[in-house]
Amino acid sequence: MERTEIETLGEFGLIDHLTKNFEIKNASTIVAVGDDAAVIDNFGKQTLISTDLLVEGIHFDLMYTPLKHLGYKSVVVNLSDIYAMNGTPTQITMSVALSNKISLEAIDEFYEGVYAACEKYNVDLVGGDTTSSQKGFIISVTAIGEVAPDQYIKRSTANKGDLICVSGFLGGAFLGLTLMEREKKIYLENPQIQPDLEGEDYIVGRLLKPEARVDIIEFLNTNKIVPTSMMDISDGLSSEIKHICKQSNLGCRIYEEKLPIHQAARQAAFKFGLDPTVCALNGGEDYELIFTMKQEDYDKITTSEEISVVGYMTEIEEGSKLISRGGGLHDFFAQGWKAF
Amino acid sequence: MERTEIETLGEFGLIDHLTKNFEIKNASTIVAVGDDAAVIDNFGKQTLISTDLLVEGIHFDLMYTPLKHLGYKSVVVNLSDIYAMNGTPTQITMSVALSNKISLEAIDEFYEGVYAACEKYNVDLVGGDTTSSQKGFIISVTAIGEVAPDQYIKRSTANKGDLICVSGFLGGAFLGLTLMEREKKIYLENPQIQPDLEGEDYIVGRLLKPEARVDIIEFLNTNKIVPTSMMDISDGLSSEIKHICKQSNLGCRIYEEKLPIHQAARQAAFKFGLDPTVCALNGGEDYELIFTMKQEDYDKITTSEEISVVGYMTEIEEGSKLISRGGGLHDFFAQGWKAF
Repeated sequence: MERTEIETLGEFGLIDHLTKNFEIKNASTIVAVGDDAAVIDNFGKQTLISTDLLVEGIHFDLMYTPLKHLGYKSVVVNLSDIYAMNGTPTQITMSVALSNKISLEAIDEFYEGVYAACEKYNVDLVGGDTTSSQKGFIISVTAIGEVAPDQYIKRSTANKGDLICVSGFLGGAFLGLTLMEREKKIYLENPQIQPDLEGEDYIVGRLLKPEARVDIIEFLNTNKIVPTSMMDISDGLSSEIKHICKQSNLGCRIYEEKLPIHQAARQAAFKFGLDPTVCALNGGEDYELIFTMKQEDYDKITTSEEISVVGYMTEIEEGSKLISRGGGLHDFFAQGWKAF
Repeated sequence: MERTEIETLGEFGLIDHLTKNFEIKNASTIVAVGDDAAVIDNFGKQTLISTDLLVEGIHFDLMYTPLKHLGYKSVVVNLSDIYAMNGTPTQITMSVALSNKISLEAIDEFYEGVYAACEKYNVDLVGGDTTSSQKGFIISVTAIGEVAPDQYIKRSTANKGDLICVSGFLGGAFLGLTLMEREKKIYLENPQIQPDLEGEDYIVGRLLKPEARVDIIEFLNTNKIVPTSMMDISDGLSSEIKHICKQSNLGCRIYEEKLPIHQAARQAAFKFGLDPTVCALNGGEDYELIFTMKQEDYDKITTSEEISVVGYMTEIEEGSKLISRGGGLHDFFAQGWKAF
């Protein structure tokens, strides 16, 4: 493997190197990388801004996270927030702090992933900051998006009786993480043993290469479904629904049997001795969408296999509860993924 | 001193705690903290975006940086980039990664500074991310601003013969840093000795509490001076003028005798055995503005004591040179503050 130290380029050399082949995709991008600030035009739309800070050892483990995937995911998780507002992402800024452990070849791989995500989701990289860190790799992404005036969808506007819907499947990313942590532990105890990821493509892919659900936003728009509230599922369903309940001043009921769990995730859960329901409720990083909608919109979503109705909103006095398969009412036990 | 561990609040408790007293100032701020993304309205203007990543041990030293000042400065350095585009900052996002070394009281102090800067510069805090770090305090700020259509000023549009102007004084922040590093070294060698900052308020203030030069932008607009290029001086004059030269495809001449150096900075330089010219050229973090303008605008700036003409732009073939007091031509020696 070739290894070029980043200090041979210097900060501005590195920025030139990282951005030289990037082409502008959005007409609203007037000035991109290379000045004090990016310039973004508006066409009578509203601007959305979302930002994430990702820290090595807290949010990702380079032992089992390929840098290209990390770059891709760093972008996608931010775009997911823009879609979750019913917006269209148009630009990102990407800042990185690098320890001297990381070579230029490594950071190139990371940016390959960044650019692949920009390409796929049609967003422009318009700025950022590159610096060094004393320890670990630090990533800060800010996504900018647009939305037609007042068409953004908040978390605080659900109504009593609204149906609670989620896209795709839940719990897979958490099971992928569980697998990777298990294999890492085995490897650290005995480096002769190669990781055994046989047949686990689905959960590994859910962890390492999530996608933002632009297809769901398009489906909702095409079918004239206006969610009454929406957010993305980054910390786990039980954590997110609590945000919607709290901000909308409501309670909810979620049916255990309605939780969408992929067959491969269910099998993995059993293999690890975990309850698939707990994984689906409390596992983070699926980057699916959760939204509420009026009951009368129900017929419109039945054409989508990617949307599941999992419950409904109630008065706040009724609390937020899970209805188990047996019919019992349970509190949501966990807090989602804890940053602290 | 009271000390509350941050984990007693959790991530969302911390966000609530940090943002509860913040009031929206800009009509363009529609949705601020508390959803997937902030929503910002446009009034036929263009949006500016700038971002910075600040890492403990690289960009700041908590041994001599009060947290309130750090919060203030983290915001100001970003706003400075928006002003340097001839824009008006309107919103920021603030993300922090905290090690368990930092208590809630400490982060409150930091945010006091953040809010003081938001108050002073009339910007709204509209989002961010809070997480933990394995080591050190990490700050990521993104500033959003607006500018009337096509009134932004880039680095790449200077013309041959244009005058090179800088605001305020240069080199002071670097001398403040030199003083602080010297006092830190003395203290580490002998903790009995208290820091001696007597009479050094000016340079210490330049380091710890820089301001963004909104007054210069207002002066230029009031006096109908349209700079042909502009940027802020974060890495040192010699580094910044090289950016303008490179991006405008020109050379320059800077007169040593015209460099604006505060009397207190000059005295400090002599005390430390440093050349004040080198401090003014290569010292970073002054956050003054450098801009170029047409020669015919010269009369318009003479009413400001805060703007100095330090040189002029040339053809690229003539190179970028300093004209010393003795009349000799010199290359700019350093690269400005090196992030790597």
